[in-house]
Amino acid sequence: MRMLDIILKKRDGEELTKDEIDFFVQEYVAGRMPDYQASALLMAIYFQGMTSRETADLTLAMAYSGETVDLSPIPGIKVDKHSTGGVGDTTTLVVAPLVAACGVPVAKMSGRGLGHTGGTIDKLESIPGFNPFQSIEDFIRIVKEVGVAVVGQTENLVPADKKLYALRDVTGTVEHKSLIASSVMSKKIAAGADAIVLDVKAGSGAFMESVEEAFELAQEMVSVGIRVGRSTTAVVTDMSQPLGMAIGNALEVREAIEILKGERTGALKEVSLLLGAYMLYTAGRCQTVKQGREMVEEALDSGKGAQKLKEMIRAEGGDERVVDNPSLLPVAEEVIAIKAQRGGYISSMDARSIGQAARLLGAGRNTKEDKIDHRVGIVLHKRVGERVEKGETLAEFYLTKEENLQEAIDTFSRGVIIDEQPPQTKPLVYGVVTREGVERW
Amino acid sequence: MRMLDIILKKRDGEELTKDEIDFFVQEYVAGRMPDYQASALLMAIYFQGMTSRETADLTLAMAYSGETVDLSPIPGIKVDKHSTGGVGDTTTLVVAPLVAACGVPVAKMSGRGLGHTGGTIDKLESIPGFNPFQSIEDFIRIVKEVGVAVVGQTENLVPADKKLYALRDVTGTVEHKSLIASSVMSKKIAAGADAIVLDVKAGSGAFMESVEEAFELAQEMVSVGIRVGRSTTAVVTDMSQPLGMAIGNALEVREAIEILKGERTGALKEVSLLLGAYMLYTAGRCQTVKQGREMVEEALDSGKGAQKLKEMIRAEGGDERVVDNPSLLPVAEEVIAIKAQRGGYISSMDARSIGQAARLLGAGRNTKEDKIDHRVGIVLHKRVGERVEKGETLAEFYLTKEENLQEAIDTFSRGVIIDEQPPQTKPLVYGVVTREGVERW
Repeated sequence: MRMLDIILKKRDGEELTKDEIDFFVQEYVAGRMPDYQASALLMAIYFQGMTSRETADLTLAMAYSGETVDLSPIPGIKVDKHSTGGVGDTTTLVVAPLVAACGVPVAKMSGRGLGHTGGTIDKLESIPGFNPFQSIEDFIRIVKEVGVAVVGQTENLVPADKKLYALRDVTGTVEHKSLIASSVMSKKIAAGADAIVLDVKAGSGAFMESVEEAFELAQEMVSVGIRVGRSTTAVVTDMSQPLGMAIGNALEVREAIEILKGERTGALKEVSLLLGAYMLYTAGRCQTVKQGREMVEEALDSGKGAQKLKEMIRAEGGDERVVDNPSLLPVAEEVIAIKAQRGGYISSMDARSIGQAARLLGAGRNTKEDKIDHRVGIVLHKRVGERVEKGETLAEFYLTKEENLQEAIDTFSRGVIIDEQPPQTKPLVYGVVTREGVERW
Repeated sequence: MRMLDIILKKRDGEELTKDEIDFFVQEYVAGRMPDYQASALLMAIYFQGMTSRETADLTLAMAYSGETVDLSPIPGIKVDKHSTGGVGDTTTLVVAPLVAACGVPVAKMSGRGLGHTGGTIDKLESIPGFNPFQSIEDFIRIVKEVGVAVVGQTENLVPADKKLYALRDVTGTVEHKSLIASSVMSKKIAAGADAIVLDVKAGSGAFMESVEEAFELAQEMVSVGIRVGRSTTAVVTDMSQPLGMAIGNALEVREAIEILKGERTGALKEVSLLLGAYMLYTAGRCQTVKQGREMVEEALDSGKGAQKLKEMIRAEGGDERVVDNPSLLPVAEEVIAIKAQRGGYISSMDARSIGQAARLLGAGRNTKEDKIDHRVGIVLHKRVGERVEKGETLAEFYLTKEENLQEAIDTFSRGVIIDEQPPQTKPLVYGVVTREGVERW
């Protein structure tokens, strides 16, 4: 088998066989195939696409390119969730404890974030003492004992994705649904869960800016999940404005805790409850999504979810007292208020601009080598559609240094638009993709 | 400027600026841009194409990526020709002396061939003593003194093409008209001629199998030539069967000499005269193509062309007596006849199969490192449309070893089809592309 023939075949619009896809992934991971042939194939895939069968084969070839996690020692149907990523998107910290409190084991591996703010792992590391890098044995033990663990991805999980993603990132081949789907799903499959719920974001702060594209990606991922025998559901949710009010690592943990303690409501809580309901349903814990919803609401209202978070933090070496006393989290002391320059209705709180502003303050990374400052970030006071008066506070910036501050303010301000008329509001949830098909809300 | 942005721009179907194209070529040649980004861009170009303006800018950026030849010390309008390559395609050795004999200086740089048989340089090297690797000073001096020189491309001519072609070859990005056009035209421009005549081949033995694609490529190259201020014409000719009767290096030189001496007629002579007429016309030596045709015919009939070839061979160190006595050329002594298995009309003499058979005998290269055997090859006795009786000789194989002989015979035989009915014959010339447009014959 020759890589050149595989490139030509895909370039000319033909379907690749499982053997050809396996050959590509294996040779590339083994370092026997040059990057320039891999990037040519990726660009050909970008233009010619892949069938669901090819995408599933690529996903499996990637999933088994390195270590995989066997969760079978944990009784029951294990559930995982994944978000395609957004700004102020802290659902994992809310929903994982809630679902675990409902009796479904949540075994989640997470990556560090490359983007506006940190990934879930970065957020968890803002909790004093928390060590997300557990061995696989400890990961399984914690899920067995506590019912939930969120840990860092092990080094050798899906090396094919690490290598291919790094290449896609510099060759203009990131934005293709089959490639995104295989990247996400290979990690979920290698991490071993039986049931998977995906949160596919649509809007300026997401991979997929348009709702149509988000649904296509959701369908692609559900199709791959089902083809490889994992019960998979996807919800498509809005990411045109940040999901939570906090953007930044410790700030987001604080918001998640407040939601779990019933002290705060809003879009982040709403999407978390939705995801929780689908996680219970997809794992077969309830007959209907509505029942699942009632179960997670009960877990929240009763405080069982907050209790579960405490247990998980303790099991992973962290100071669980942050749940009762969030002031133990490292939050920047210098806070400046960003005020409205005019009165009116907020018509845009652009997720991308606000995310970039948070990164400028130090909450996110530009390159893998960058260090994150867990203490900094932005807390919004307003959301799209709300009325604001001139001089009223739109947001607070939490800082540890003045560097980049003006650029952060300018970037933030470019994303916030105040109009005289109230805007048409966007739905928070666009719909769901299940085994049965697409359901638009 | 970032290469990733250039890739994304082309991927998304936008036109690249001159600066972006210059950046790409310069950084790539300088080794500051990784192959994987170059191959991603090439594949994006394969799918999105380039405008004539982009193709011309790419051509110029490549042409000036290394040494260029200044032919201005030679008085008059210097003309060059180029064939996109085929089997038994020895027009240069016929037409270059003829055009020079008509008073138009021919300054031609040629490459070694990678393919079924050698390139023009390999063919010339079969003449005892001939040294095609002349310095640029000697190249210019010979054209001034003799009126014609065909020399090997200097090492540092168009390094961008060397590097890009090697990459295209292994990444499935060879077959695109803009990339082919820029590769060919960059070398012509760097080699310094004022007027350029292109022979674009269509058929199984050519880059472009379909006549349509050949015309598209011809238009692309003429458009580039005109945009960069070179008088350029292209003819589109058939390459479904070999052009000459000889395939193999010394054998082709012998055939060219026989044509120049008026001892042989046929398709090779016809296309050579056509190219010669257009070379004189494109260089402004005559008012009409018809006049040009009369001039090259006169140069042939009078023996002035053969005389010019002698002078050139001598000037480049070769034994010019081969023109009077072709038996001085190194030709294999072992000759076997390939006979017709049945009687009928020849409906196919597939150029590609016959070229491959010649390569199996040792006449061509698979890799740059392969050595060519100048003595071997194939001499056809029949052409498409001719009647053949069972047992009659179709071709003679000239051998120096038995290795690969059976495979060569099988490959040759697969390309030769004999039918009961005479086939529809294909035209030898499909048309011409000039500054004025496309003229289909």
